[in-house]
Amino acid sequence: MIIVLKPDISKKEEAAVLKEIKRLGYKPHVMRGVERTVIGAIGDERTQRNLDVLASWKQVESVTPIQKRYKLVSREAHKADSTVKVRGQLIGGKKFQVMAGPCSVESETQLLTTAHAVKKAGATVLRGGAFKPRTSPYEFQGLGEKGLKLLSKARKETGLAIITELLSEQHADLVAEHADILQIGARNAQNFQLLIAAARTGKPVLLKRGLSMKIEEWLLAGEYVLAHDNPGLLFCERGIRTFETYTRNTLDLSTIPILKKESHCPVVIDPSQGVGRADLVVAMCKGAVAMGADALLIEVHPNPSEAWSDGAQQVTLEGFTRLMEEIRPFIAAAGRD
Amino acid sequence: MIIVLKPDISKKEEAAVLKEIKRLGYKPHVMRGVERTVIGAIGDERTQRNLDVLASWKQVESVTPIQKRYKLVSREAHKADSTVKVRGQLIGGKKFQVMAGPCSVESETQLLTTAHAVKKAGATVLRGGAFKPRTSPYEFQGLGEKGLKLLSKARKETGLAIITELLSEQHADLVAEHADILQIGARNAQNFQLLIAAARTGKPVLLKRGLSMKIEEWLLAGEYVLAHDNPGLLFCERGIRTFETYTRNTLDLSTIPILKKESHCPVVIDPSQGVGRADLVVAMCKGAVAMGADALLIEVHPNPSEAWSDGAQQVTLEGFTRLMEEIRPFIAAAGRD
Amino acid sequence: MIIVLKPDISKKEEAAVLKEIKRLGYKPHVMRGVERTVIGAIGDERTQRNLDVLASWKQVESVTPIQKRYKLVSREAHKADSTVKVRGQLIGGKKFQVMAGPCSVESETQLLTTAHAVKKAGATVLRGGAFKPRTSPYEFQGLGEKGLKLLSKARKETGLAIITELLSEQHADLVAEHADILQIGARNAQNFQLLIAAARTGKPVLLKRGLSMKIEEWLLAGEYVLAHDNPGLLFCERGIRTFETYTRNTLDLSTIPILKKESHCPVVIDPSQGVGRADLVVAMCKGAVAMGADALLIEVHPNPSEAWSDGAQQVTLEGFTRLMEEIRPFIAAAGRD
Amino acid sequence: MIIVLKPDISKKEEAAVLKEIKRLGYKPHVMRGVERTVIGAIGDERTQRNLDVLASWKQVESVTPIQKRYKLVSREAHKADSTVKVRGQLIGGKKFQVMAGPCSVESETQLLTTAHAVKKAGATVLRGGAFKPRTSPYEFQGLGEKGLKLLSKARKETGLAIITELLSEQHADLVAEHADILQIGARNAQNFQLLIAAARTGKPVLLKRGLSMKIEEWLLAGEYVLAHDNPGLLFCERGIRTFETYTRNTLDLSTIPILKKESHCPVVIDPSQGVGRADLVVAMCKGAVAMGADALLIEVHPNPSEAWSDGAQQVTLEGFTRLMEEIRPFIAAAGRD
Repeated sequence: MIIVLKPDISKKEEAAVLKEIKRLGYKPHVMRGVERTVIGAIGDERTQRNLDVLASWKQVESVTPIQKRYKLVSREAHKADSTVKVRGQLIGGKKFQVMAGPCSVESETQLLTTAHAVKKAGATVLRGGAFKPRTSPYEFQGLGEKGLKLLSKARKETGLAIITELLSEQHADLVAEHADILQIGARNAQNFQLLIAAARTGKPVLLKRGLSMKIEEWLLAGEYVLAHDNPGLLFCERGIRTFETYTRNTLDLSTIPILKKESHCPVVIDPSQGVGRADLVVAMCKGAVAMGADALLIEVHPNPSEAWSDGAQQVTLEGFTRLMEEIRPFIAAAGRD
Repeated sequence: MIIVLKPDISKKEEAAVLKEIKRLGYKPHVMRGVERTVIGAIGDERTQRNLDVLASWKQVESVTPIQKRYKLVSREAHKADSTVKVRGQLIGGKKFQVMAGPCSVESETQLLTTAHAVKKAGATVLRGGAFKPRTSPYEFQGLGEKGLKLLSKARKETGLAIITELLSEQHADLVAEHADILQIGARNAQNFQLLIAAARTGKPVLLKRGLSMKIEEWLLAGEYVLAHDNPGLLFCERGIRTFETYTRNTLDLSTIPILKKESHCPVVIDPSQGVGRADLVVAMCKGAVAMGADALLIEVHPNPSEAWSDGAQQVTLEGFTRLMEEIRPFIAAAGRD
Repeated sequence: MIIVLKPDISKKEEAAVLKEIKRLGYKPHVMRGVERTVIGAIGDERTQRNLDVLASWKQVESVTPIQKRYKLVSREAHKADSTVKVRGQLIGGKKFQVMAGPCSVESETQLLTTAHAVKKAGATVLRGGAFKPRTSPYEFQGLGEKGLKLLSKARKETGLAIITELLSEQHADLVAEHADILQIGARNAQNFQLLIAAARTGKPVLLKRGLSMKIEEWLLAGEYVLAHDNPGLLFCERGIRTFETYTRNTLDLSTIPILKKESHCPVVIDPSQGVGRADLVVAMCKGAVAMGADALLIEVHPNPSEAWSDGAQQVTLEGFTRLMEEIRPFIAAAGRD
Repeated sequence: MIIVLKPDISKKEEAAVLKEIKRLGYKPHVMRGVERTVIGAIGDERTQRNLDVLASWKQVESVTPIQKRYKLVSREAHKADSTVKVRGQLIGGKKFQVMAGPCSVESETQLLTTAHAVKKAGATVLRGGAFKPRTSPYEFQGLGEKGLKLLSKARKETGLAIITELLSEQHADLVAEHADILQIGARNAQNFQLLIAAARTGKPVLLKRGLSMKIEEWLLAGEYVLAHDNPGLLFCERGIRTFETYTRNTLDLSTIPILKKESHCPVVIDPSQGVGRADLVVAMCKGAVAMGADALLIEVHPNPSEAWSDGAQQVTLEGFTRLMEEIRPFIAAAGRD
């Protein structure tokens, strides 16, 4: 911790700060500058009491932490890229992966049609929501267990791995029974109890970024998964909330090089939620591939205008096939398969 | 819904939109303007399929909903202010209420000292976290059930009502056993399963605004509580996330007149989380009182520099007594007791 | 400056950093912590080269400035509140001041009717735009010099001081001839050439906060005025841009206690721009008064529905008279006249 | 304009709205829905009075514009991509262009070394600031006219076109004399007087996006250039301000497909300002190329650690040569030369 003192304070006021730093278990180190005195408080910030409180003292100007607060997710802890294996496919390896499927599971026909089509176009994971978090209590909330069973059926028929959202701690075992990857949605990105419940199932966890989550908070939320003995963590950028209203969210592609620098975990991009408009999805995918993402998560629906949720952002089956064609040269340029 | 068509589209493209509107159960109403054609789709937007999907059609420029999506929380549904009764005290009535106490329950001494002090200064509700949502898995997570029991003890000794946070659906009954008001934190503001679990306990629910939650989304999250037959809803503004880094959050006091206009539910302001600095809390409280808030939620600690969480934003016992003195003339000016 | 080094770097890499710090004129001071080494670079950050560049060095984790970058606007430079005298009225003194008038000057009748009405209700400064910055080139751009002459006439008739916006360096002398206070709008808050031109006229300058301006940047923009030998600086909060769309902007009232803490200059609040809706203006004014603002800047129009700009946020003449009545008890509670 | 009325209003209140709409020159068109009545006001929103003011009427719930407010910059006005010719090079054509050079012009050696190096690596335009907008009045403000002359000299020696920032209306002729493209910086993006002055020089104008500028506002600011008879407009995304603090700004690459959809003008991406960290620049460039940008604007310095401004975000000469190599396969994949 670095504590900056105000100018013109008395010796006594300075001594009080030094005493408090020692009392809280740190070793103070004083540097006298041109106008201000700066104190370095040496000790392990992760295990000791936080010195933030000093910020409210009259004689203190600011308190700045030095250590990174995340550990297991950090690149320092694990120099090489980590990979997550799902039904024989490696996410985070040389092969670029595509996860695709409808926003919500609606019916057997809708799901199986989509599953066969996305498989044919090259996807290896099928997405589909069985439990849906909806802004309004009056909107369709998902088929629940029935949806999970349809997902299992689709896996059996196509061999695709399944990713679906976990909404409630109480469903953790049930969802893990059917899914190969548990998705934690943006609204639950700091629902730590849910993260722990997901981690405990042992299944890989895809953690979406919260709507206004800083990179550091996202890494720390991921830390909850690794700290509960589950190494299968995937980070998924899905757009943040900004002042811009043209798109539903602002898809922050800079997270790709940042996460690659700070962490060893695979990075997935969700352009469908990210921009909320099917007509912008292809361009966002190209950018994501070029910048080094490990996988995409794309909403695909046989007939978006009949979708029970988020129709505007789902691409058609033909649209998806075309998209896969269009990103191919960029996958090659990025040195991936 | 209002659907705006692009200029220069063909008759056939227009007809396709009209057909789809009808198919989805709405009655289309065409208006031809100077450059563009606008279609009003008449029908109940809350019960029928959403027309959003049309936004992705080539011939459509935009789709705008007309109806408000919330119902039970709205001022239209309940013209008079609603009040929430807690241990004989009315929140939302003529008497201005103050809820105060430590960020976390740490020990019997800490809690009881605080409880007696805030009661003496005029508070009627004691706050204190037993289960704490922490950004990092390595930070203090609260005393749990032991903390709840200390809160019960404090109530018995002082007669203060208790408010504490509910973090997990699985704790709903346990927390409801000890608390008079269940707090849903900002990070869980759109954890709909938790909202439902809280509503079902029958205890009043204080719903904090999420870090980047629009007013409409907040009202809809509140709708989950009322729609699950619990009329005891309090909205609590606690600051939103913006680009400004001087304060921890930006406390949006405009929510007071806005919520009073849109909804009948009482409005509580949390200046401690809102600005994250004890030295700014008094000024924020004065503003909240003057603008018509029904209650304040303030973090108070006997010794903030020893607090196990969020020390920088907790005021001292003497600070709290002074604060209560300082806001008194504004309570009077606002016509409250 | 505080430079944090990465863990596990070589002696040689550390030495290179120390050498560079010295080369740039600072004295390095090394602190070895548990995991990381921290270097304090001692020297005057305002006069010497910035060390930010070290942040891009491989062996460096972060670089944090210690000194505040603003000087003349700071509370440290001038412990007492400063005041700005305008036509015999003191802004920043014991008397609470209200500036009111139309968004744009439209006609002699419109302006004089408003001027007499706001004077009668208690305002001491008349606002009115002669040069208007408009988002679209096709919108009304103001009456220009003709508008300035009408403002002069209104001053002569009513004795009210005049505040009006300066849009262009080339108009500085012309506007200063007619105005008692020059307003720098939000879109020009970091148009430093304009700030310098305004400062040089010698007239008081009211500096609005930019739409996404951090407090520190705002203070530094104000520093441009004081550094060009003009002591008559007023800061005016007018709302920042956030994700919320219910209001036009988010009026950040926490700036009142923050500016009072960091600076000695008077603080003005503009609720009309801040929320963009006349029906919320009264509540925002009450909050501003209670929190210690020195003055309000309010848009008033004899017939808002005929206004040539920003009709939705202007209050009527009767509305303004009522507003002045309603804030009176809060002015008293705040200890102002 | 679409005006939504509140439920339960009287016939008289509705009639008043209809009357006002007519008085302001629109033809009202009434649609009665399930709960609310909606009025379409038909007329040219760009030439007639704005109906926004109705939003403050008691019986009105909302007012929504229908027409796009921009005209000349829109894709509707000019279906084909427009191109801007600069010293024989086409920006917006098949050839992908790179503009590179130092943040500030510091000396002849610094500038010429950089110019030769970036030319050799493939750049066709040299950037360099002569007039610098600095947050603090105490920071280096640029070499001014001396800097412009050095830029002219560099053009003469290398044949590179020159882009440099215009800060003040009063410098328009001087800067236009030396530059091939005038840059309008983010802080001046809504300094309309400056935009007009730039347009009038007849030189191409590169308009950076303001820190919190919505797409629509950006297009409208561009409209100021085209409306003043200058067809040479380039839009340049340089990052927006969000809550994230890891990067200096959040580079919004979704603007590439959005601008391509809404407008015909070329799109330039500035990753250096966008992320503010040299180590992330290459990845951002790859994304921009893949997504269809027409050009990049990159800060390059022979020795970033000695730069007089923004050292942390400038890449070295070798770094730039490497960058050009790394983006080559993506330029090919995007079908550009």
